Order: sequence, then structure tokens, then C-alpha cells
Amino acid sequence: MMKSRVTNLFGMEYPIIAGGMVWCSGWRLAAAVSNAGGLGLIGAGSMTPQVLQEHIVKCKAATSKPFGVNVPLMKPGSAEMMEVIAQERVPVVFTSAGSPKKWTAWLHERGIKVAHVVASSAFARKCEDAGVDAVVAEGFEAGGHNGKEETTTMCLIPAARRATSLPLIAAGGIMSGDAILAAQVLGAEGVQLGTIFALTQESGAHEAFKRRCLDLNEGDTRLLLRKLSPTRLVKGGFYDAIEQAENRGATGEELLEIIGTGMTRVGIFDGDIANGELEIGQGASLLKGRDIEPVAVVMQRLVDEYRAARRALDAL
Amino acid sequence: MMKSRVTNLFGMEYPIIAGGMVWCSGWRLAAAVSNAGGLGLIGAGSMTPQVLQEHIVKCKAATSKPFGVNVPLMKPGSAEMMEVIAQERVPVVFTSAGSPKKWTAWLHERGIKVAHVVASSAFARKCEDAGVDAVVAEGFEAGGHNGKEETTTMCLIPAARRATSLPLIAAGGIMSGDAILAAQVLGAEGVQLGTIFALTQESGAHEAFKRRCLDLNEGDTRLLLRKLSPTRLVKGGFYDAIEQAENRGATGEELLEIIGTGMTRVGIFDGDIANGELEIGQGASLLKGRDIEPVAVVMQRLVDEYRAARRALDAL
Repeated sequence: MMKSRVTNLFGMEYPIIAGGMVWCSGWRLAAAVSNAGGLGLIGAGSMTPQVLQEHIVKCKAATSKPFGVNVPLMKPGSAEMMEVIAQERVPVVFTSAGSPKKWTAWLHERGIKVAHVVASSAFARKCEDAGVDAVVAEGFEAGGHNGKEETTTMCLIPAARRATSLPLIAAGGIMSGDAILAAQVLGAEGVQLGTIFALTQESGAHEAFKRRCLDLNEGDTRLLLRKLSPTRLVKGGFYDAIEQAENRGATGEELLEIIGTGMTRVGIFDGDIANGELEIGQGASLLKGRDIEPVAVVMQRLVDEYRAARRALDAL
Repeated sequence: MMKSRVTNLFGMEYPIIAGGMVWCSGWRLAAAVSNAGGLGLIGAGSMTPQVLQEHIVKCKAATSKPFGVNVPLMKPGSAEMMEVIAQERVPVVFTSAGSPKKWTAWLHERGIKVAHVVASSAFARKCEDAGVDAVVAEGFEAGGHNGKEETTTMCLIPAARRATSLPLIAAGGIMSGDAILAAQVLGAEGVQLGTIFALTQESGAHEAFKRRCLDLNEGDTRLLLRKLSPTRLVKGGFYDAIEQAENRGATGEELLEIIGTGMTRVGIFDGDIANGELEIGQGASLLKGRDIEPVAVVMQRLVDEYRAARRALDAL
């Protein structure tokens, strides 16, 4: 009962995709999600082309199921990454943070399926024009980089549904099987989950980062950096420095200096939660108190919850 | 198939409540919503106790169905308003912007049902302790005053559902029957809609305000005024002045001066959309291009959409 155009397109059992997240989405997470019946993505945003290649090779060894790579197009090295992806015959690419026109034809010529991540219905329409195979519509709830419109999943999915006839994947704030069903009711045919998979055992993030994110209350993540590129951050030292600067009217250049470089690595990969940049979705607070679980357990719970939510609705 | 604890509690046909909105929610809108099978609320936030009394008397004359009054507790005159409400035997009160403990027992002694509006699960729990009859959980999408946590409807409803066993009403970004069903899947038993009813013929808002709000694109409302009380505003002259001040680091006191007094009246009631304060929910962009319709048409569409969404799900 979870089959859709999205499962048909990518060839997985459940319409559940693990978003490609910096420092979290290495081969271990991608392979675990694909092995559990979803579609795992390797997140190239924190990798060099060479590191990406290593992850792809290891992912292929760890799963016989389809998996993909998420390539944020604004990052340097994306052309080399695409070469690696084609060479290694990765079946699926999710592009984000750039134009869906840039790589779609090139990838299609090489038999690679393409989805593009958007935060507005205007960009969902551009995806259709660009000929991508599926659109991910990601709401304000999502961790890390975020759309300028601040449109939430509840408002974005119906808008994207009207804007495109392509297979539609909902992202942002989806933390349970109930929420997967809700996204489906709003018009989605699949979901992309970041937060819940970032905090699993197979995620490449540091344990201290995972523990911090599994202990958040409502309001403990906020969208900041609107003057540069809106980003959802977890409260902490890094967050405080930016918020204080913004409150006193800091310019984009001043904010860039405060941000520095490599701070997501410090926070997410090295686990320095006091000083590093911490990115997670708003829905993390819904996971408060959970253990750091294996992907298989998380996936089975999502499927069980989804089925229970369907039954509860049928009983109404 | 739309019966729930919420319809039982308030005695309406559909679990659809029209939020009490400043300048919009007079007796005409409240009576029209109740006559159409929902629960209409008179919004006392923009009224004196005497004006409220006039609206209650007219509402009683215009409908034999149950209706209510929304009283924002922070506003001056709320004690006199409660006296008016009790004297006129209004069956339902929705309290907001204050403690649910303040009036619940007093209203219950007079046979009046009480719902309280919250923006976090912590406050949903306080509602249960205070003995209210139902909780409205209102997400970040909502127009006007908003929670400090910025929790969206997609994340807030599941959190509120866990926090309280009370009948739960979802609000924020719900613009269609599909979204009503999605809210139900997330754990709500009813919905409170503001935006869609603020833009009907029976709303007390000026036609120019309604036309402006029916022409918004995604991103045309934003949450500002975080240093005072977070408020979702429509882009325009008033919005620009506040955004520019915030960008240069204005203090709360400086912002208060820019806001001035009575500017929601100028924008929403007088229809000076260039200069007045305009408040509407983020989901208004989903209504773009619609006419200013009668409440009965809007309500019937919501019910039809809900039923179609149920059927579509059954067919999956």
C-alpha cells in the first residue's frame, strides 16, 4: 500500500528516501537505507570527488539495491562529481542548490534518473521544464540550507502538487509514518527524510551531535542567516554568535566572518557541539528521548506507523 | 465522516472553526460559519466590550447554531468582555495570548465551553492542567501573532497530540479539505481556519485587503517582530519599514515606535494596503486567483475536498 510513481521510478519497496546530508550521508547510511527498502543517498556536499568515489564504491559493495548521490550544484567540484557518478554507474542523482537544467540531459544520456530539490512551486515548475524525473519539495522545517520563501511543508506540498505533474516527494518535518501519510494526503507520492536518518547508528555524524539532536525541545532549531542563505541551525555557541550579530544588524560580510569555514565539520563530524555549526530539522524535537537506533529499526517503525495510521483512518 | 470529539463538544456539523481575527471576525462572519455547519467565532481582539456585545446580540439574531467568542487575554478589557459573554450566554469561548488558568473555571461555572490557543506542546499540557475542554495548536503558518518556537503545523500537531489527551484542533496553513484530512492524520480532531474565512464576503475586512491577500505569492508573508512578539505580516510599506529596521538592528523600543498604534485597523479595516499593517496566514498564496466568495461556498468546497481526499486514499 505504499507503492507509488516514486517507488516505480527508483525501484524501491517503500517511497522513503534518505536525504543527502553533509557529514551524515556516507556509504554506510545510504546502503543501510537502501537495504531497508528505501532509497539511500550519498551526500556529496561534504566530499571531494575522490572521497565521493570511495563512498560510491563501498556503497555498491554494501547493497545490491538502487541508491543515489545528492549533488549540491553550488559547491565547487560538482562537474568532477558528475563524472565520477557516471563512471561508477550510480543509478540516481538528486541535484539541489542550482538550476535543474544544468545536468539533467547529461545525466539522462547516461541512463541516470534525476530528481531536483526545490523550496517553491515556481522552481517545481522549472523542474518540469528541465525534464527531471521527480521533484523534492522541501519545507521550512528542514535542517540546514532552506528556501528564501520560508514556505512550510503543509503549504508547499499542495502548491508544488499544482505546479507540476511530476512524481512529487515531500520533505521537511516528516518524522513518523503518520506524517508520511499526511504528506501523501497533501499530494506527495514519496517522502525524503533527513533528520530521522541523520540520527541513526549508520549516519556518519559524531555521536555527540546525535545525542544533542535527540535532546532538543521545540524552538531549539531556528532559521538564521537570511542575509546570506537561510539556514536552520541548532541552538548553541555557533548559533548564539550568529543570532547576536544579526540582532545588532550585522551585514552579510560580517556574518560570513563569524561563520568561518569548515564549521559543519567541527560540529557534525568532530562532535564539538559547543562551538561547531549544528544543522538538523525542526522535527528533531519529536524524536526527543529516542536512542541512536539502526536504520532498519527506524524504517520498520515508519512503515508500521504508516500502516497503523491508514487503519485508524479507515476506522473513522 | 467528519464527526469527532470536537463536533460533539461544540455541537456543529463539521469540525471546522473560523478563528477569531481582528477586524475580520464580526457577527456576520461568525454567524455565516455557524450557519454553514462550522463554528464561527467573534474576534474580540479589535473590539471594546460594548462593541463585542453588539456583535454577540446580532450574531444570536443571525443564527440559531452555536457560536463563540475569541478573547485574547493580553488585551485590555478582557474582564469586562467575559462579563458580557456570560451575560449574553455565549456558549463557547476561545482564549488566547495568556494563561488558560485565568478564566476556565469562571467560564465553566457559567456553563460555557472553553478552548485555548497554544503554539507549543508545553502550553498544550498547561491547558490540560487548567481543565479547558479543547486545545487549538496553531503553527508557524498562521497570520498575525505567532509562537516564539516557530513550530510548524506539521511538527506541532504530533507534539501537541502527545502532550494532551484533550480534543485537539489544528490551525496554521490549512487551506483545503485535503489539508483538513492531513491534520486529522497528524492527530487533530478538528481544525481552526483563519485565512480562508478572513477573505470571504462576510469577513469584516476591507475589500482592498481581501483582494491583496488573494493575490499573494509564496514568500509574500513573513514572520517579523521577533524582538517584541513574533507576527506574520504581508509584504508592503508597513512590512518594509519593520524589515529594514530589523535588518539594521533596531531595538524593541525602536520597533514599537515604527509600529505605532491602530495600524491593523488602517490596513485590514480601512483597506489602506500601502501603509497599514496587513496580517494573513502563509497559506494565502494557495488561494491566489480565487474570488471573494460567500462562506457557504467556501465551506462546501472544504467538505467536498475532504470527501474526495478520503476517497482518493481509499483507492490507493
